Amino acid sequence: MKRVKIIVAYDGTAYHGWQIQNNANTIEAELNKHLSALLCEPITVIGASRTDSGVHALCNVAVFDTNTRMPGEKIAYALNQRLPEDIRIVTSTETDLDFHPRRCESIKTYEYRIYNAEFPMPTRRLYSHFTHVPLNADLMAEAAAYLEGRHDFKSFCAADADSGIESTVRTIYQIYVEQTGNEIVIHVSGNGFLYHMVRIIAGTLMEVGQKKYPPQFMRSILEARDRSAAGPTAPARGLTLTNYVFR
Amino acid sequence: MKRVKIIVAYDGTAYHGWQIQNNANTIEAELNKHLSALLCEPITVIGASRTDSGVHALCNVAVFDTNTRMPGEKIAYALNQRLPEDIRIVTSTETDLDFHPRRCESIKTYEYRIYNAEFPMPTRRLYSHFTHVPLNADLMAEAAAYLEGRHDFKSFCAADADSGIESTVRTIYQIYVEQTGNEIVIHVSGNGFLYHMVRIIAGTLMEVGQKKYPPQFMRSILEARDRSAAGPTAPARGLTLTNYVFR
Repeated sequence: MKRVKIIVAYDGTAYHGWQIQNNANTIEAELNKHLSALLCEPITVIGASRTDSGVHALCNVAVFDTNTRMPGEKIAYALNQRLPEDIRIVTSTETDLDFHPRRCESIKTYEYRIYNAEFPMPTRRLYSHFTHVPLNADLMAEAAAYLEGRHDFKSFCAADADSGIESTVRTIYQIYVEQTGNEIVIHVSGNGFLYHMVRIIAGTLMEVGQKKYPPQFMRSILEARDRSAAGPTAPARGLTLTNYVFR
Repeated sequence: MKRVKIIVAYDGTAYHGWQIQNNANTIEAELNKHLSALLCEPITVIGASRTDSGVHALCNVAVFDTNTRMPGEKIAYALNQRLPEDIRIVTSTETDLDFHPRRCESIKTYEYRIYNAEFPMPTRRLYSHFTHVPLNADLMAEAAAYLEGRHDFKSFCAADADSGIESTVRTIYQIYVEQTGNEIVIHVSGNGFLYHMVRIIAGTLMEVGQKKYPPQFMRSILEARDRSAAGPTAPARGLTLTNYVFR
């Protein structure tokens, strides 16, 4: 038996997220189905990041165990022949039998993309959130800086998140806001994110961008440790997992 | 009666191009249908650039005549409420009754996007052409430079193009090739393009990028004035009309 690690890219538009669900198509279900058919044995992948419905990824990570004699690095080619065109394996490699992607220290990077103009741009609609309300990206950048470092992000965690969670302290290594034409992108890297955390950060920064409250207000939102202190959860389609590094 | 000019953006993936056809959905048909319903009179738009099936546009131009009392600039808002989300009106303005978008001098800019990696990237698949064959973007840039200026582009015109065409001489004001990570983009601006011209340029530059022939060979391709001298027609999904200026 061997353990194979795959890097998976997907357009999340047509999927109900990563995790298997009854009566809904998910990335995990597609991978299990096509890997099982390819390798002629029942395969169950373990994903690193269980992205939400509609969220995209350039490089999610998963592992699975198999008895196949097919070399690990060939699996990507063979599996890509079977997968729908909105899911692709970027690489497949054999890894240690005890490697578990959710039990490793990692740095994940997400991008949240906002298209800010009078009308939406059709060619951007699937990969960015549209708002016609003018946003000031400089204020958003200033507000984002308050989130960098190690903080209790309870205010930025979905209120209905699994209450079994031990701690809501996380470290954001880097967060910055970039504007190019009508597009504003929030880049955020950290050692782990709470449920909906990046989307709540995006929703809150957009409220700062609309001048609902000043950038310094981010400090009181963090201190409140209360979901209702932060802004709304921004829509899923603007979010993409763009980088995943194990340390 | 007044003439209204609209700037139209669309994701061409789901359409059989601009021009009305029997039994196929087109951008022109969608605009006529929704404008007629909105303005309660039969409307027929005249498009500036009749893009091919699957080609995208950020700013195609069209005009139509109407007896409506709705101010020209309000039509964009009202029409966007009715259009499918892969078509959007960027602006609508009243214009001179004798303005005809195909009889005016203009500068059009197209981008041809290539995703060059081992495997396609799902989030880029709709707006770029994928090839795993390694391309040398420097050679492509060198080849592109031979096309700048006024030339007879007969070799870059689809062989089955309307034979009623008077001249195959066109001017390319600017053409350049840009590489960012796995993406190579060909930018080309000109006073008009022959049928499939940008896609044949892209197909030819890709052959140079694969070292099938050297950049200098572009000169003999131009001189041949023969479609078979140039490379293949690159797929439509990589092509986007990105700018349209009337002089």
